[in-house]
Amino acid sequence: MGLGVVVSLEEGRDKNAPGDAPDKAPANALEVLLRLVAEDFAKVDTEIRTRMVSDVPLIPELAGHIIASGGKRLRPVLLIAAARLCGYEGERHIRLAACVEFIHTATLLHDDVVDESALRRGRATANIVWGNQASVLVGDFLFSRSFQLMTQDGSLAVLSILSEASAIIAEGEVMQLTTANNLATTEDDYLQVIAAKTAALFAAATRVGAVVAGRPADDELALADYGRYLGIAFQLIDDALDYQAEEATLGKTVGDDFREGKITLPVVLAFAAADESEQAFWRRCMEQRDQADGDLETALRLMRKYDTLDATVDRARHYGNMARAALARFPDGEYRRALEGVIDFCIERAY
Amino acid sequence: MGLGVVVSLEEGRDKNAPGDAPDKAPANALEVLLRLVAEDFAKVDTEIRTRMVSDVPLIPELAGHIIASGGKRLRPVLLIAAARLCGYEGERHIRLAACVEFIHTATLLHDDVVDESALRRGRATANIVWGNQASVLVGDFLFSRSFQLMTQDGSLAVLSILSEASAIIAEGEVMQLTTANNLATTEDDYLQVIAAKTAALFAAATRVGAVVAGRPADDELALADYGRYLGIAFQLIDDALDYQAEEATLGKTVGDDFREGKITLPVVLAFAAADESEQAFWRRCMEQRDQADGDLETALRLMRKYDTLDATVDRARHYGNMARAALARFPDGEYRRALEGVIDFCIERAY
Repeated sequence: MGLGVVVSLEEGRDKNAPGDAPDKAPANALEVLLRLVAEDFAKVDTEIRTRMVSDVPLIPELAGHIIASGGKRLRPVLLIAAARLCGYEGERHIRLAACVEFIHTATLLHDDVVDESALRRGRATANIVWGNQASVLVGDFLFSRSFQLMTQDGSLAVLSILSEASAIIAEGEVMQLTTANNLATTEDDYLQVIAAKTAALFAAATRVGAVVAGRPADDELALADYGRYLGIAFQLIDDALDYQAEEATLGKTVGDDFREGKITLPVVLAFAAADESEQAFWRRCMEQRDQADGDLETALRLMRKYDTLDATVDRARHYGNMARAALARFPDGEYRRALEGVIDFCIERAY
Repeated sequence: MGLGVVVSLEEGRDKNAPGDAPDKAPANALEVLLRLVAEDFAKVDTEIRTRMVSDVPLIPELAGHIIASGGKRLRPVLLIAAARLCGYEGERHIRLAACVEFIHTATLLHDDVVDESALRRGRATANIVWGNQASVLVGDFLFSRSFQLMTQDGSLAVLSILSEASAIIAEGEVMQLTTANNLATTEDDYLQVIAAKTAALFAAATRVGAVVAGRPADDELALADYGRYLGIAFQLIDDALDYQAEEATLGKTVGDDFREGKITLPVVLAFAAADESEQAFWRRCMEQRDQADGDLETALRLMRKYDTLDATVDRARHYGNMARAALARFPDGEYRRALEGVIDFCIERAY
């Protein structure tokens, strides 16, 4: 892993984002940041692998599976970059970045059990390979280990931020259960869910960067805002991609959310605009989950008819702009520019 | 709840423990402790109900279900009693007792998902009423909330003890997965599992009692030993009861462990003593989980033949004695006597 992952990740991005206009080069925007933090990133990787060790072999085996499957490691990278943006020169951010990744990994393990997912980032999910039981318990282990590491770091401010974020994530996930298969879900409900389940950890990660650097509260909150708005944009795009991306790009099956009856913004907007027969279609597919061949195509046609995927991306751009504005108080420089680039990456990926 | 629970719990115990010799009065031994800490216990109850609140209604609803089902609340009671034994006069132990109960409740919620249990303490489990998804996520919420409360308490020593205990619990549960249906499990393996999955939280609870009282490390470790040995004894008895208790007493079905192929000490010992045909019986029932009518009765007959239930209770008495010895350094008084009484209660319940 380590730098190897960075490189293969970059290559993957370059290949898998054929829609990118060369002048936008959003894949390169993430690449710029990854190059900038490469040394720290390698240390985080070592910290993660060292700290997931246990006398119970199944734990590093299962945790290694999901952590090795890589993903973008956006959250720890954001924490590192935020700390460096704030001029931090120490080493505490390494361990705390690993904590954030452990929390994220624990939620992924539990999510895959909750969603009964079979595929994540193109690989079989841990619940499929080792069973739901092991996924639940190894998630619990990583979560606990994360709090052990934070305690070793010794900052109550950091513990407060990350324990609150963890509670909010769980609330967001429970909220999502109650919006699933429920077409009464409004755009506000949806935003509340994604702010909690996704953006809270982004916000905590970037905020912790300012905390370790000992920055004043205003800077802390500005970086929390950056993370929060970026996280919302990221999830909006994720939910749009679920109806658009090639399987190879997304690493999961197109239309998963549709098949599960998950009410994401593209559906919320299409249902709000629907005529009576279209409403009946959505109710049958999403509420009764009575789906047949061709229904996903009909759903996509209705989204195109009301332009709800573009509207979702527009919302993401709006939050991206807010994230950018939150960075304005920080001096121009390579870290600020790289963090701005991440906004573009999150929004433009696979478009 | 509050004192109401204490009273009904006492009544329940009196009624449901017909095997108790009046001079032993183990139910009364717990009662003595519960009376002693009644005021603190009521505050813990309020703290629990106040802190499990969330804007997401399903969270207090589900958490309330499992917390209201009560159980003995042994862990928070032990924390309170340990703090008082150490002469603590403050209020921090209230919140920390709630933390310990939250961690315990989170593990119960996840356990019931892992075990696919339908019944706990005579009530339908949360996973049956609300589904596995909600149980996993509400467990995560309670766990996070517990760390939020500890952070508010502000002691890194406490955070260290309880985050380590949480990681050890998860390790114990994963270890238990690997011993399930595996007759190669030794008595040592079994002890390692119960020390981790059960005794670690008992030990952490009593140790935190000494920490809030600001006692020296020797007292801390002695109380941790008390909790650990008590927890081991408690789990040994639990595993013996699974083959003996009336359903009304245990609140779960007799023979659950057998049907799940869980390898507990009564089985480990019976398998170690078995002749060839008996070994074949155990392999069929526990490893292949190919069970028919009358198999549970055969298992019970073999356990009687080799006296493995009594041997399990003997082990529990041994650990009970070690728990008692750990208390010897503390001055005689009502709290020490009550904590000694809890040992008797744990061992003698339903015998």
